[in-house]
Formats: sequence, structure tokens, C-alpha cells
Amino acid sequence: MLDNHQAAQIYARVRSRRPLIHQITNFVVMNCTANITLCAGALPVMAHALEEVEEMVAAAGALVLNIGTLWPGQVEAMLAAGRRANQLGIPVVLDPVGAGATRLRTESARQLLNEVSISIVRGNLAEVATLAGIKAEISGVESIGGSGNVSEVAAQLARLYNCTVAVTGAIDCVTDGSRYASIANGHPLMATVTGTGCMSTSVVASCAAVEKDAVHAAAAALAAYGLAGQIAAEKAQGPGTFQALLFDALAGLSQESLLAGMRIEEEQA
Amino acid sequence: MLDNHQAAQIYARVRSRRPLIHQITNFVVMNCTANITLCAGALPVMAHALEEVEEMVAAAGALVLNIGTLWPGQVEAMLAAGRRANQLGIPVVLDPVGAGATRLRTESARQLLNEVSISIVRGNLAEVATLAGIKAEISGVESIGGSGNVSEVAAQLARLYNCTVAVTGAIDCVTDGSRYASIANGHPLMATVTGTGCMSTSVVASCAAVEKDAVHAAAAALAAYGLAGQIAAEKAQGPGTFQALLFDALAGLSQESLLAGMRIEEEQA
Amino acid sequence: MLDNHQAAQIYARVRSRRPLIHQITNFVVMNCTANITLCAGALPVMAHALEEVEEMVAAAGALVLNIGTLWPGQVEAMLAAGRRANQLGIPVVLDPVGAGATRLRTESARQLLNEVSISIVRGNLAEVATLAGIKAEISGVESIGGSGNVSEVAAQLARLYNCTVAVTGAIDCVTDGSRYASIANGHPLMATVTGTGCMSTSVVASCAAVEKDAVHAAAAALAAYGLAGQIAAEKAQGPGTFQALLFDALAGLSQESLLAGMRIEEEQA
Repeated sequence: MLDNHQAAQIYARVRSRRPLIHQITNFVVMNCTANITLCAGALPVMAHALEEVEEMVAAAGALVLNIGTLWPGQVEAMLAAGRRANQLGIPVVLDPVGAGATRLRTESARQLLNEVSISIVRGNLAEVATLAGIKAEISGVESIGGSGNVSEVAAQLARLYNCTVAVTGAIDCVTDGSRYASIANGHPLMATVTGTGCMSTSVVASCAAVEKDAVHAAAAALAAYGLAGQIAAEKAQGPGTFQALLFDALAGLSQESLLAGMRIEEEQA
Repeated sequence: MLDNHQAAQIYARVRSRRPLIHQITNFVVMNCTANITLCAGALPVMAHALEEVEEMVAAAGALVLNIGTLWPGQVEAMLAAGRRANQLGIPVVLDPVGAGATRLRTESARQLLNEVSISIVRGNLAEVATLAGIKAEISGVESIGGSGNVSEVAAQLARLYNCTVAVTGAIDCVTDGSRYASIANGHPLMATVTGTGCMSTSVVASCAAVEKDAVHAAAAALAAYGLAGQIAAEKAQGPGTFQALLFDALAGLSQESLLAGMRIEEEQA
Repeated sequence: MLDNHQAAQIYARVRSRRPLIHQITNFVVMNCTANITLCAGALPVMAHALEEVEEMVAAAGALVLNIGTLWPGQVEAMLAAGRRANQLGIPVVLDPVGAGATRLRTESARQLLNEVSISIVRGNLAEVATLAGIKAEISGVESIGGSGNVSEVAAQLARLYNCTVAVTGAIDCVTDGSRYASIANGHPLMATVTGTGCMSTSVVASCAAVEKDAVHAAAAALAAYGLAGQIAAEKAQGPGTFQALLFDALAGLSQESLLAGMRIEEEQA
């Protein structure tokens, strides 16, 4: 598994290359995911019209597909952008928000996984378990429990679609079905703000744009993002100030604090 | 009318039960209403696709319909979700943003009131007056005056549609047409941030999910929310910091501060 | 060119008249542009349904058309609102977000310029250059370089469509093709937050609603907004706290600080 030096290098590459991250995403978090992408050092662009997504993604370093406020026309645009990204070798990161909560969400996420080659799925335990075919409990878009060991569930989805899966939670888990990383960064305040999961997906995509090894990209991204959460929590007085400080903290992360603070560990399957 | 002890108990139930609040709402405030719902202790989910709203609302404790950036397809989804909520006995809270400003808004709000059994309407004076059939002055979505006594106007709408009406302003008024509460919490800074009205609607719905008496639910919600506004205003330096601190304050409200700070009074008709 | 006294008067008129600013805009920045409009002293309303835009704009002091997350149906609504605004003599401000990045954006911006009489175009250098027919480099919606002198490029677009053009950057440039103003307010932190360009457009529209001279309106708006950015930067710890403080700073600008701090200069063509 990657050490902190390699992880910090991935992060440094985002900042020096400033990849464009095309995001077809939900309307709840759009402002936050655009801002967190900027804070990570990349350039966000939100575009969902079928008439432009193939052209837009062609200029991007990575594509985010987030189904948080999906509708059929948006899924159609996601499929078009995803296929074009596949043709061009641009990594696609899927955030299956609320998979398991409604048939539309579960089936749309499955369709995206079946018709687009997804590089990384970033979700919570219930979403990932649902897509792996394991019973899970979800309330709206919040995972409120899932059966089974997190890395087992993640690995099952990873093998099913030949992709990397990143499950965020108290401890994040990243696996491609054979290699496993656990990331012990983060803070409970992150669960009190809407969109912190979606924001982590944007950071993962930013790293995937500059690092071919998807497990390394996702692990580095989640460690840096979680570390920013820890730093933000030191000064926050609640969810509102935490949200503002999270942007500050990610933008302000130095290579030194990354090297000292990231807690990525190899896990045995 | 409810005393502070009862009101604080309603609020405590939101935090212990964490009801899911399904919101079909406007794109301006989605992030803020999701976050304020979390701060109140409930779980927000935003979903507007006709293909999923009936399934999503079935898992919810309350449904918010907010027409702030409406379009005909969204109103159709609101009607479908609202009817399903009615079948299942799930309370529906309507925020008729901008009723009176355009025919589309006025007629859509009326259609929702006619075809869905609405538990609570939460609006400003101009919106409520318009729906009650009283001439009012509205500039875009901002009430800039309304004729008549606030509680009279609210009661007229409440009787017309057999619902509870909550009019927010300097003093909030809640009535079902026979009982009246006035809430003297809140702060002028709340009028300087967009979506503070919409956010109050989400808090009202969070309380309605755990309290069958709609007048009690709305009064408790507006008192707690207004109190949070007062606390946030103490440290705010303007509208931007106020918005962040409002989330902090609502999330941080203790039962003690609720008991001491809520100003709900019974009003004589 | 206008002096600080005149510019401060424009700003004072926004606050005393509170014009309604109808914005058909993108979903990334809607909350921020509504809030900055309130901070400037005007009243925002977001409405994009074809069924209501003509009625809504008739009540407005200015109309903003922002194509940041456009789709064909939204452009249709923009055309309808724009034509109605033209009939009524209401100034129309265009923010051609991402023109140059995709054909849909470039062609939609051109269509709006051809079919609606636009009073002011507010964009970055790449967007303005693209519409002026000059080769430019854009990454998503971020200008990453443009050829030619900024005021030359702006003037070319201004003459092409007989409008005022405001190009924001380190130094802002406003011109109608014969008069030129440069504004040296602003701060590098503004480039680290998404939507700061879109927010400047809303402030420009707020001033255009109360000042017939479009060059004066745009210059006064950008100077005040940039000055707010400078003030916010003094206390900000990064992009997140900067965003909150920017709202505080604009809302808190006194006439004295405007007179002392605005840096508007006449430029020779």
C-alpha cells in the first residue's frame, strides 16, 4: 500500500496540474463540491445537458457521476458522458447516492455500472452493500447500518464490476478486491453536514485525474480530506462553522501536515 | 397552548427519532434546508423525480413541498408525492414561495392545497394573504406588506383548507383557525439571508414528523429556530457569518436553553 | 468616468430602492448569488419556468441571464424573459459562463446576444474573447489565458453587440467601446471560491437597475464588490471563511469606506 510520501505526491500533482473535473451531480451539493474541488487544487465544471456533456468531458481529467437528485434525463447524460470518458481513457467516479432507497436510484446506479466502465465507486456502506447485492438499511440517503464486514462488502462490489470501491465511514475502506487500504482520518462533525460524502467523491476524482492506480488515488484523497476534517473540527463551533473551516483546511494543507497526519494502512483481506 | 416544557419535548423527540424528511424543494436553498434539517436532528432527503417520489415519501416522517423554483413537471411530482403521503398519513408541509408574484406560483400553490391534504402551510404574510384571497404586496418572493391583521389572515387560510398556517415575520403566528400561538423569537438578521423562511419550513416539518398536533409542532419548531437565530446573531458580523452560526446554534440548542428561551404565547382570536 | 462620489451614490440608490433582480441562473451558485444580491441591498428572485419568466421579469428592475448549467429549455426561458425585459426597458445582464468551453455554451451565448438586447456582458477574459471572435483558452469555466489586450478584447465585443462589457480579473475592465474604466479593487482569494464571478454579475445587475449609464453601473458595482473582497480577505483563513466574510463585507460597506476604497480609473483606449 502507498506510504504517506507517495500519497502526498499524488496530492501535490493535483495542485500543480490543476485537472478539470467534470461533475454531473446533484443540486444539493453542487456549490460545495465545486468549492472542495477548487480547495483540492483542481478545477470543477458542472454541466449536465446531453447536448454538451460529451464535449465537456473530453477536456476533463476525470468525470464524477453523482445520482443524489437524479432524474431520467440526467442519467441519460451520465451514460453519454461516461461512454465518452471510457473512449478517451478518462477515469469515471460514481457516487451512488441513495442506492437502496428507491428503485430508480438502485437501478440507475446499476445501469451506470453496467454500461460505463467505472474506475471508482465512492459511497456509504448501505449504498455499496445494495449494489453488491447485500441487504442494507438506508434512510433516504443516510446509511443506518449494513450487514457484514465493510471491506468484504466493498471487495464484493469491486470484483462484481472490476472497479475500485471506497466506502467512507468512521474508518474509510478502499479496495479493488485484492488490495485493501483503511484510512483512519476524519471527524464525527463530517456526518453533521450534508454533502460531505459527495465532497469526498470530488476529491477522489481530483486525485484519480493525476494517479492511474485507483486504490492509491482514492486512499490519498480520503486521507487528505479526512485530515482536513480533523483540522477544521479543532476550531469549529458546530456544523455551520465546520463547513466553512473544512474548505479552509483542505486548501491550506501543507505537504508537511499531509506527511505527518495521513493515516493510511494496508489491510489484510 | 403548549408550554416550553412540551415544546422542548417535541424537539427532543426529533433528535431521538431522527425522522426522514422528504423535501421536494427549490434549488436556491436545497443545501441550506438539508443542513438545517440535520441540525434539527432529522434526516433530509431531496428527491424530485416523478419516478421515485412516491417510493421515497413512503419512508419519510414528513414531506415538504416548496415551490421556490417550480416548473410544471416538479409540481406534478409534488402532487404524486403529496397524494401518497396522504394515503399513508404522513404530514405534508407546504411552503408557497412567491405565491402572488406570478400566476404559475399562485395557481400551483392552490392546486397543491386543493388536491393534497396539507397539514401545515408555512409562508410569509403576502404569500398567505394571496392564498387566503386577500390582496397583498409581494416583490418577487419577499413580502413587502399585506393588508389586515396577521392572525386574521392566517386563520382565514387555515379555515379555507382545514389546515394549520404558520406565518413568519417579526412575530410568527401559528393558527388552525381556532387556536392561535404567537412566537416572539427570531432576529432581524434572519431577513438578510436567503432561504431562512424555507429553512424554517424544514424545521416545522421535522417537528410535524414527531408531533400530531400541527399547531404545537409548528409553534415549537419556530420558537426553537428563532431562538437559534437570536443566539447566532450574538456572534455574527453580518449575513455570511450569521448563516454559518445559525446552523451551529440550532444544532447546539440544549433542552435548558430551549426551556429558558422559547417565547410562545397563546393569542386570543 | 465616474468619481467615487458618483459611484457611492449608485450604491446608495440600490439600498434605498431595493430593486427586484430576476435571475435565470445556474444551480451551482444560486444560493450565493441570491445572498450577494441581498447584501448589495437589492431583492433577488430566481425563476426559470417558461410559464412564469415573462410575468416575473415585468416586476423586476434588472434581469440576469447566466448560462453556467444551461440546458436548451432554460435558454428558451432566457430568450422569453429577455425579450419581455427589452419591451419594458428593463436592463439585461448576461453572464456567458463557459462560453468557449462547449458549442452549446458558445452558441447559446451568441443566440442570447443576437436575439435579446443585452445591456451588459459580465465575463472572464476567455468568455469575452470567445464571443468577440478572438481565440481564447478556457478550462471548463475558468479562463486560463486569452490573447490580446483586455480592454481591446472587451471593446471589440462591446462594439459587436452595442453593449457594455465588464471583464473581471486581477484588474477589472469595463467599456462600451468608447469609454473605458479599470477597477483595481479585489483580492486573489476571490479566485479560490466558486461563483465569485457570477456573484459580481448579480451586483452589476443590482446597480444597473438604478443607474441608466451601464458603464457607470458596472464600474460602481465591481469596485464595491472588489472592495468587499479586500475587506473579507483581511480576516479570512481560507476560501471557506472568505466566502462567509465576503457577504458580511458587502452588506457592511459604509458610504465612507466606499468613498475611500473604490479604485475606479478612466482608461485611455
